[in-house]
Amino acid sequence: MSEVSFLERMTRVMIMFEVSCILIYLVNEVPSAEGRVHNYTWEVSYQYKYLDCYKKLAIAINGITPGPAIYAVQGDTIIVNVVNNLVMENVAIHWHGIRQPGTYMYHSHYGMQRESGLYGIIRVFLPKGQPEPFPFPYHYDRHIILSDWYHRNPYERAANLSSIPFQWVGEPQSLLINGRGKYNCSLLGSTADSEVCNLKNPACFPAVLTVIPGKIYRYRIASLTSLSSFSFQIEGHSMTVVEADGTYVEPFVTQNLYIYSGETYSVLVKATQDPTRNYWATVNVVSRRPATPDGLAIFNYYPNHFHKFPPTKPPPGPLWNDAESRINQSLTIKALKGRVESPPKTTDRVIVLLNTQNTIDGYYRWSLNNVSHSLPATPYLIALKKSISDVFDQTPAPESYSPDYDIFSVAKNTNATSSTSIHRLVFNSTVDIILQNANTMTKNNSETHPWHLHGHDFWVLGYGSGKFNNETDVGKYNLDNPIMKNTVPLHSYGWTALRFRADNPGIWLFHCHIESHFFMGMMVLFESGSEMVSEPPQANMGCGATKRFIDNTTPA
Amino acid sequence: MSEVSFLERMTRVMIMFEVSCILIYLVNEVPSAEGRVHNYTWEVSYQYKYLDCYKKLAIAINGITPGPAIYAVQGDTIIVNVVNNLVMENVAIHWHGIRQPGTYMYHSHYGMQRESGLYGIIRVFLPKGQPEPFPFPYHYDRHIILSDWYHRNPYERAANLSSIPFQWVGEPQSLLINGRGKYNCSLLGSTADSEVCNLKNPACFPAVLTVIPGKIYRYRIASLTSLSSFSFQIEGHSMTVVEADGTYVEPFVTQNLYIYSGETYSVLVKATQDPTRNYWATVNVVSRRPATPDGLAIFNYYPNHFHKFPPTKPPPGPLWNDAESRINQSLTIKALKGRVESPPKTTDRVIVLLNTQNTIDGYYRWSLNNVSHSLPATPYLIALKKSISDVFDQTPAPESYSPDYDIFSVAKNTNATSSTSIHRLVFNSTVDIILQNANTMTKNNSETHPWHLHGHDFWVLGYGSGKFNNETDVGKYNLDNPIMKNTVPLHSYGWTALRFRADNPGIWLFHCHIESHFFMGMMVLFESGSEMVSEPPQANMGCGATKRFIDNTTPA
Repeated sequence: MSEVSFLERMTRVMIMFEVSCILIYLVNEVPSAEGRVHNYTWEVSYQYKYLDCYKKLAIAINGITPGPAIYAVQGDTIIVNVVNNLVMENVAIHWHGIRQPGTYMYHSHYGMQRESGLYGIIRVFLPKGQPEPFPFPYHYDRHIILSDWYHRNPYERAANLSSIPFQWVGEPQSLLINGRGKYNCSLLGSTADSEVCNLKNPACFPAVLTVIPGKIYRYRIASLTSLSSFSFQIEGHSMTVVEADGTYVEPFVTQNLYIYSGETYSVLVKATQDPTRNYWATVNVVSRRPATPDGLAIFNYYPNHFHKFPPTKPPPGPLWNDAESRINQSLTIKALKGRVESPPKTTDRVIVLLNTQNTIDGYYRWSLNNVSHSLPATPYLIALKKSISDVFDQTPAPESYSPDYDIFSVAKNTNATSSTSIHRLVFNSTVDIILQNANTMTKNNSETHPWHLHGHDFWVLGYGSGKFNNETDVGKYNLDNPIMKNTVPLHSYGWTALRFRADNPGIWLFHCHIESHFFMGMMVLFESGSEMVSEPPQANMGCGATKRFIDNTTPA
Repeated sequence: MSEVSFLERMTRVMIMFEVSCILIYLVNEVPSAEGRVHNYTWEVSYQYKYLDCYKKLAIAINGITPGPAIYAVQGDTIIVNVVNNLVMENVAIHWHGIRQPGTYMYHSHYGMQRESGLYGIIRVFLPKGQPEPFPFPYHYDRHIILSDWYHRNPYERAANLSSIPFQWVGEPQSLLINGRGKYNCSLLGSTADSEVCNLKNPACFPAVLTVIPGKIYRYRIASLTSLSSFSFQIEGHSMTVVEADGTYVEPFVTQNLYIYSGETYSVLVKATQDPTRNYWATVNVVSRRPATPDGLAIFNYYPNHFHKFPPTKPPPGPLWNDAESRINQSLTIKALKGRVESPPKTTDRVIVLLNTQNTIDGYYRWSLNNVSHSLPATPYLIALKKSISDVFDQTPAPESYSPDYDIFSVAKNTNATSSTSIHRLVFNSTVDIILQNANTMTKNNSETHPWHLHGHDFWVLGYGSGKFNNETDVGKYNLDNPIMKNTVPLHSYGWTALRFRADNPGIWLFHCHIESHFFMGMMVLFESGSEMVSEPPQANMGCGATKRFIDNTTPA
């Protein structure tokens, strides 16, 4: 675990400090004498791309977006040497979820840079000879990266979100499957340059998933959307879900997979339909009224030409507002018995986090228990290690909200406060988090929030509708086979209950994975055992109050 | 001088290192016991602006662009505490030219950030009771900042310039006077949103220069263009030029002032025309075929309403290709006798720099003596101080070019090489620079380049047409009253001869002030006396080969 901690700390540290040349160590949880060392060099640069036919600058790794996939066997060591060629921008890469064999991802965790395309998938395999505990074996292992795509650059979107009056970034222009989408160029008007948007550009031909008839495919699916919750499906083919966020699940069959930003899944698909034609693979927006066309890929049966469109219309997907179906799927996902650790039966502490949309001095923000988080100029870990008490609010962050709060209505007073306060947890203690959703500042509206925890997995003990009831809901917790995840949806007007062990020394973000919500303060920080973390290196000194720790034995 | 050096070093260092929180010391050359200390706090942030009616993100200081003017008396100390609120970008501010009382400017010197609007003027006054050595006194002291404005963001323009095939950034969309211009919104087509471009937006009403009839005004004029060379004039009013780049000039009267990117001038203007009307102040593009409408401001005679347009059409300005007129004005500008130091009569070294446009591996670049400069990952000063020889090319940069080179034709072989090599100068020696222009890669085309030297002023010994002739041109040098400047134009197909004393310890950029030319390698570096510079502070260690100097006495 400490290596994950080191990794995560490096990432945090780089967000604060590094400029033009970053060396990142990605260390798997279970170092093994037999593990191989993989060395990669990634050049990060701006590149014009036509992901959805519309010409737009993207941030690419070695020229491509999504970036190169990382393949590793459990126990391997990955060293990525990142060369930042962005000229004017820093880069920090977050190795999202990395703990054990399974499917993970990486993405930029710097400003709103993630949505410029700086992300990719991480596929961790079991050592040779160890079979995956799936209901049936698969022949091929493939991956699918889902994302949404804005035409405005992150600087504009950040300025919008921090404007008075508030300017919402709006719905994305396109949905992408493996970095391919299709924008309706005619929306640009007749004066638009065909160089800027051209539907015939081969660069934006839909992604192709080629299968050999009769074979079984494992698809590792990752959602890196900025905003959207998705339903993913493959026309005419059911999927057997076998893994989520890197841990095994009790296999279940579904026609469509709901996937939220920050989540990963593995599904098994049998290519046993009529092999003389191709099929559609689609994503469509759920939980928000869609204003973006569905994303399409071609599920191609070899030897049909992969450019041949299916003879059918793309399947419509579920209704965007069918909340029940989404909650049911959330409830369906259980850990595979014997392959996932069980949770402690009791907890040491319960933290309730009311999710609300608020105003602070005229700015729009998101808050937890009426506190919207702001990050201090001084990195927390250094402040904690060096006992600098004046760089963040030492009052503990609030752990509950008023029992009178009506989660079904717009608050009468939408004002919140901004704070740098954190939650300090006893090391190795067990902590429950009750995420409680509520109405936004818009009548009859409650948004879905995918919550992501750094540095730990958590058990998902339950989901429910309405207000969490401490008397009746705790008893219904699934303590038998709850799934372990690092990202979990909080459904509209509902609650989600999580349990985790604070066994990773450091200070860790827990945040909504919707990029604009995170930008607007929708995060908390959990500290535990930070005294066990080794001294921060000199190279990390320089910002905020850490200046005083710069070693100036050489005269300036 | 060492304080200027310190200042400049800080700026360079910040380009390489600093991230989110920068403290900049701007120290005037002549510290004085009586000098006051001015403390400023500048918050740098992205803001939507309508500088030319078109809605575009600009980088503002305390909400405004151009940024706040700095006013100081010779001997004062200015401390600027810069708070970087750009979220995803670093900031480095270059205090352009600062040496003595006069008119200077500051601007971003980081990537292509300058042209997002991060710049302003610096006005240094003589101590109270010391009159300016002008031909007649003035009543009021005002400033005018000239710039050009692109609608594409710097990320796009940087990607364009480094694309294969090369994509030129094109001419700017607007010319700005004190941050105001007027874009022809109808070019956006009928579908354009009036929120995006609206000529009636008061935010883009032309700048107003209000004068009281009969009074005399000193205008301090600075050009911060990205690309354009300008002619500036005030309809019906002549100007008496009295200062250039912070040093006094022999006063001369002109109808229009040619001003190149990076230059500053002071002119005196008498408000003695018909006071019942307003007049136009205009800038228009010279030396490139204009594709941008002239920039307009209102020269407003009080008490006429300042929104009242003049009854006349804006004056057309000189022909863009009247090179002779521009060279003549360059030749007219002489130092004011007795107020500007004279140059050494002889030189210790002559460096000839042939300015050419080239290709390197299919990329378009600008070169000096066929070498296009690339900056190493390790800061030069640290490499020099620590004797790290492998981080930049130790071969001296070339100081001449083949005598056979035909400056009037497109080169048969346009290939150049890229190098990190520098020019090393003997400390306190006298160095001549002959800037030699040539044809670009386009037939019958030679561009104007404004060259700017960091850390020093130079004497401008002469300008000439065609190829510099060492036998005949040296004898015509003006050693009597050459002006001292920090920025000087190199005219099309011509040469410019400069002399300076290498009396400022450090390593100094000398570069074309056209932002895209600089981006494409049009720079050299002069080192002298770097051994006299004190040790770089620990905070500057971290990039490239400097990592090894991080003091890790505290275990990582």
